[in-house]
Formats: sequence, C-alpha cells, structure tokens
Amino acid sequence: MLAYLPPTLRDLQLPLRLRLWDGKQIDLGPQPRVTLVVKDPSLVAQLAHPSLDALGGAYVEGRLDLEGPIGEVIEIGDALSQALIGEEAPTEPDFQPHDKATDAAAISYHYDLSNDFYALWLDRELVYSCAYFETGKEDLDQAQQAKLRHLCRKLRLQPGERLLDVGCGWGGLARFAAREFGVQVHGITLSRAQLELARQRVAAEGLEQQVQLELLDYRDLPQDGRFDKVVSVGMFEHVGHANLPLYCQCLFGAVKSGGLVMNHGITARYTDGRPVARGGGEFIDRYVFPEGELPHLATISARISEAGLEIVDVESLRLHYARTLELWSARLEAQLERAAQLVPEQALRIWRLYLAGCAYGFAHGWMNLHQILAVKPHADGRHDLPWTRADLYR
Amino acid sequence: MLAYLPPTLRDLQLPLRLRLWDGKQIDLGPQPRVTLVVKDPSLVAQLAHPSLDALGGAYVEGRLDLEGPIGEVIEIGDALSQALIGEEAPTEPDFQPHDKATDAAAISYHYDLSNDFYALWLDRELVYSCAYFETGKEDLDQAQQAKLRHLCRKLRLQPGERLLDVGCGWGGLARFAAREFGVQVHGITLSRAQLELARQRVAAEGLEQQVQLELLDYRDLPQDGRFDKVVSVGMFEHVGHANLPLYCQCLFGAVKSGGLVMNHGITARYTDGRPVARGGGEFIDRYVFPEGELPHLATISARISEAGLEIVDVESLRLHYARTLELWSARLEAQLERAAQLVPEQALRIWRLYLAGCAYGFAHGWMNLHQILAVKPHADGRHDLPWTRADLYR
Repeated sequence: MLAYLPPTLRDLQLPLRLRLWDGKQIDLGPQPRVTLVVKDPSLVAQLAHPSLDALGGAYVEGRLDLEGPIGEVIEIGDALSQALIGEEAPTEPDFQPHDKATDAAAISYHYDLSNDFYALWLDRELVYSCAYFETGKEDLDQAQQAKLRHLCRKLRLQPGERLLDVGCGWGGLARFAAREFGVQVHGITLSRAQLELARQRVAAEGLEQQVQLELLDYRDLPQDGRFDKVVSVGMFEHVGHANLPLYCQCLFGAVKSGGLVMNHGITARYTDGRPVARGGGEFIDRYVFPEGELPHLATISARISEAGLEIVDVESLRLHYARTLELWSARLEAQLERAAQLVPEQALRIWRLYLAGCAYGFAHGWMNLHQILAVKPHADGRHDLPWTRADLYR
Repeated sequence: MLAYLPPTLRDLQLPLRLRLWDGKQIDLGPQPRVTLVVKDPSLVAQLAHPSLDALGGAYVEGRLDLEGPIGEVIEIGDALSQALIGEEAPTEPDFQPHDKATDAAAISYHYDLSNDFYALWLDRELVYSCAYFETGKEDLDQAQQAKLRHLCRKLRLQPGERLLDVGCGWGGLARFAAREFGVQVHGITLSRAQLELARQRVAAEGLEQQVQLELLDYRDLPQDGRFDKVVSVGMFEHVGHANLPLYCQCLFGAVKSGGLVMNHGITARYTDGRPVARGGGEFIDRYVFPEGELPHLATISARISEAGLEIVDVESLRLHYARTLELWSARLEAQLERAAQLVPEQALRIWRLYLAGCAYGFAHGWMNLHQILAVKPHADGRHDLPWTRADLYR
C-alpha cells in the first residue's frame, strides 16, 4: 500500500489512519483522529493524487468510509489535497442557459428530499440560508430570527406593504415579515415539498390573509411593479450565469419605482477576470446542487445594475455562514441514526460532507455570502432611503 | 433667430430667455428665470441641437453668458438637451494607460489651481470629497466631520495603528484620524499646492510626530504590508481603467494581512456590459478632470477582488454627494467677486458649471458614490472584523 503513496505523505504527519480492505492499518502521523477506511484496492491510486472532489465521490459511492469528527475529516482532506496537488485551479465550466424544466428538476432534487430530514438540523422556522450572529454566541434559532429581522429592516418594511419573496423555501421569512412587520407577502418556490409544509405553517399561524404562496418560476412573475419590496434569499445561486440578466430584469419588473430589492446569496471567490468556479466544486455540482452556479459579487453587481437597479448597500456575511454551517453540521452529526431513517444512505453521506465541507469552505474564503440591497430609483433619480444605515442598528 | 430653432422648443415652455448679440430678446416660456446671452451668431446652429457638453463649452469659451441661479441653468439645460436630442448615449472612449507624468500633470491642473479659491467654498478642513449627512440638516463643516468619522469607524482605527492615506489632499482626513483616533498617518499626494498647505496645517496642530505627508505616486508605495489600514478617498477616479489592477495591487501590497482597505470614490452609471461613460461627460474630461475615468461599482469590485482583497461592506452615498455639491456650489455662488480675484475667468466659469452640474448629476443618478471596504484576509481565510456593523452607529 505505502509503495503507492507519495513519500511526502508521511512528511505531513497528518493525524490520519488508513485501514485497508484486508484489515491492515497505517498511521500517517501520531495520535490519528480520523480513520479513512479504504474498502477497495482501486482507491489506492486515487489516494496518491487526492482531491476533495475525488475523495468525496468515493465516500458517497461507499468505496471509502470515514470515522472520526466530520469537521476534522474535511480539514485533513484539505491538508492532504493541498500538500499533494496544491490548490485546485478553478475550472472554466461550460455554462448552459437553464430552462424551466431543468431548474424545476434541480430544485426538486435538493429541496424535495425530505422535510423531516431538514427539520432535524435546521432551526425551528426551517430557514435554509446563512444566519446572522450579532455576537457570535447565539444559538441557531436566535441567529436565524436575527437574520430575518436584519433582512426586513434592510428592506425598511412598513405595515401594509407588499413583499415578494422569490424562492420562499418553507416560508420562514414570509411568516416572520407578515407577523413582525405587518406586510402582505407573496412567496414563490419550485419545490412542492416546501410549498406544502410552508402552507401548513401559514395556516397554523392563521396568516392566510397576509401570506400567499405558490409554485411559480421566477420567469413567470408579474412585471407590473406591483410589489413595494422584493427579497430573494439563497435562490439566485440556482439561476445560472446565462440567465442572470433575465433574473434581474424579472426582479426589476416586479418592484415599483422607489422600491427596494434585496438579493442574499452565495458568491464566488473568482471573478470573470479569472475562471469562474462552479458552485463549490465538482462534488457540489454532482451531488448537492446540480445546475448551481456561483457568480462573483462583481458579476451579480453588474447584472443588477444593467437591469436598472441601483446598488446602495452590500454586506458580506461569509463568516456568519461558516458558523451557520458548523451548527447545521453539528446538529446533523448528533442525529445520524434518526437521519438514516429519513433519507437514503447515499443522501446522508452527501449531506454530511456538504455541510461540513461548506462550513470549512466559507471559513477559508472559498466562497462568500453577500446581501446586496438595491433600489429602483424614481424617474427623477431620487429614492426614499434614509440618509444612513443607523436605523438597522437601533 | 427662431427660424433656426426647432418648433418643439416653444412647446417645452421653458422659463428661459434668449438675449441675442443685437439685443433682441426671445422668451421661450412664461416668467423666464434664466437668460442665455448669445453673444455670437455662430451659436444659433448649436442651439438647434444643444447638448450639455456643447453649451458648457460655449459658456467656458465666453461665447455664451448665463444669467440666473446656476442650479436652474443646469436644470433647464438638461430639459433642453433631453427634449431636443434625447438622453446622450455614453460614448465608448479609448482608455489609454496613464503614465506617471500624465497623472502628475492632470492632478496639478485641477488641484494646484489655488488653495485660497478652494478655501472659499470647501469646509474649514478643506475636505474635497462627498460629505456624510446623518440627518440631511447638517451644515458642510458638520457633514465633513461626520464623513471623516464614518471613514475612521469603518476602518476600525485603533490608537497606534499605521494608516496610509492615498491621495491625502489638504490632509483633512490625516489630521482628523491622528487627532481623534490616535493613529500614525502616512499621506501621499501628487499636488504640490495641497502638500504645502497640508504640511502647514499639520505643523500648526503640532501633529508632526503622527502625520507624515509626501509627494508620491501610488505606484511607488512600499509593498511590504507595513500599514494596518489603507484609505483612498476621491483618488481612484484619476487612476484610469487600464491601471486599476495595478492600483488595487499597490493597495494590497501596502496593507498587512488582516488589514482593511477603504476605497471611497465616484462610480459610473454604466457597467462594462454597456459602454463606459467618461467621468461625467466630455465637459468634465476637457475642462475639469483631464484623464478622469469612472469605473462602475462592478468593475472596481472585480479589480479589488482580483488583487486578493475581500469586499465586506459597500455603501452608496450618491445623494450625500448631491447635497455636498449643492452646498459647495451655493458657497461659491455667494462669493463670485472674491473668487474672480483668485482664479482666471475661464477657471471660474468651469468650476461654477462643474459644481452645479455635478450636484444635478448625482441627484439624477448620472453617477454614483460608493464607499467600498475590503479586508486582506489572514492566511487561513479568517479576518478580525466584528460580526456586525452596529459599532459604526453607536
């Protein structure tokens, strides 16, 4: 076995144990905290040039097992692949425009997995996007409530206003905005599982008069400026580069003059000046978010501006998302038995690696999270935003 | 005369009087508030297809005189050119890389004009960039002090830190940061007139131990990460598109790991997806800021990111700049006699039109003003910024 591994592997002194198909054990450093169970001799060659993508694939396919804390698995895997093959160059993917059917299938793959599974490790409102930590000490429920409030405050929601929620998920934001800010919310999603549970929760809170939810593609949104405010959280990652102009035009068309648009989502590390990385690597693209594409902040800023919206406030919440994903991952790890009853084994392997991997990736700056607030100015170029952002922090 | 003017001109019913070289007067609408004194028959053909650029040029060259409030002159000029020729399409300029000699000459042209002239209409600290209005009711001195404080707070300046001020002007920010936040400031400028007065003011306040200022090109900045923080206010508009990557690399090289970089400046309305407008039109390019080039927010965001900096906070202060310019313009208009003793007549004509025109342009969204805060992350991808921006508003 060792003959196949590069000599430098020992030099790294990683706290990693290899257990082979024949029961042999090899420690690559002292006091191993993670064990890689190599169930198949064909993997040895791959280990000589490991990449996170390849290791992740082998784990999902069951040719590799992992023992030890999932966070350390990722950390050691990164050290391994960095030392042996260096930083992976971003590939230049061939982005194809998504049509509605492709998008519907991709959304269903991820979000229709199992509401009960998501409920295991998300907060009580099932908010499936970056939380907001005012001190870093909050628990997940507190931080998600703070995030919803931060979004509503940035949108300067006033009672009676009409809010469009593009990609409303399980309706956490829609219900919060209706309940706490007294607005009328129209939410759209492409996930039937999300819609069903979201509607149940709206009914359970008696918010049917304030919150309407429907299965709708963003390309079918009304374009008559009927909404005072538009919010899109963790949705534009699914749109794809080719359709970003259309996406931004649809938001522009839906909001009134003087209205605000908030786009909250994951952005890429690389700009168009350097090759654009696919949404978090091949692993994410193959197993987690098919058709996901992450534009850089500069790219989405250009598309938003070209649509006629003016960017007034941008905030990076990268380390908030690292913390959110750490909490999600820890909650899932604490309930693996229950999780295994809710989703197929392969899905569980994917989600374990994806949550821990993304926690690590956000912490290390492989991607970012930006809240971008834009205004559709009045005809005379003015807008009604307050002079400062102090109102967000009162 | 009227035979040369388009029939639609009368339909506009503008509150505008034309007074011709022979003394004849023509009112284009009731109760004219502005008089255009046409001193030269050759101008009549130009009036048939007026553009702000052409009218401005004729005024600077003295072939046209203006009577009436300068703000209304701009407003009527815009209505005139919009009605008769529509919105001017942005031209696709041929951006050449600036060399040091070009930049030095361009900076000298604008900033070495006359310190006493600038002192006539700027605030007491001679802060020649967008002010910050916490309520909109502040006077210029208050709003410039608030701007300096806002910048220092965004940079999270701590006593003893080393701050680099790129394009330090008359040293208002450098002295404020040293005095109020206890930092060591190194400021650079290409204007000898600015440097001389800035040094006098540093000495007058006894801040020589804390504030060092020198005549230096940004391309000659030390690249050893010796500064904790870097600030650049109203300077990057002079860099030019071709040199933006170099400019951002110079800021990156000057700041330590974990350090912050603030870029405060004017951004263009148009992205690279549509032709890039020159810095405020041909008038500005010819008479006010030779070699000035305004990148769109998306463009400067890309260049900042490609240099290795991570954008964490962006704030548009467009309407703050409209207000600032209104105040500057009003102060200059109130002291025209004194101003005429300080600068040549043509310069005074240029500055009158430029201040009033830019006030109008910022109000109408022809350009924008963005404060972009970026961090140079530590090697592990982390940074030391607080979780939220609440500390800016305490």
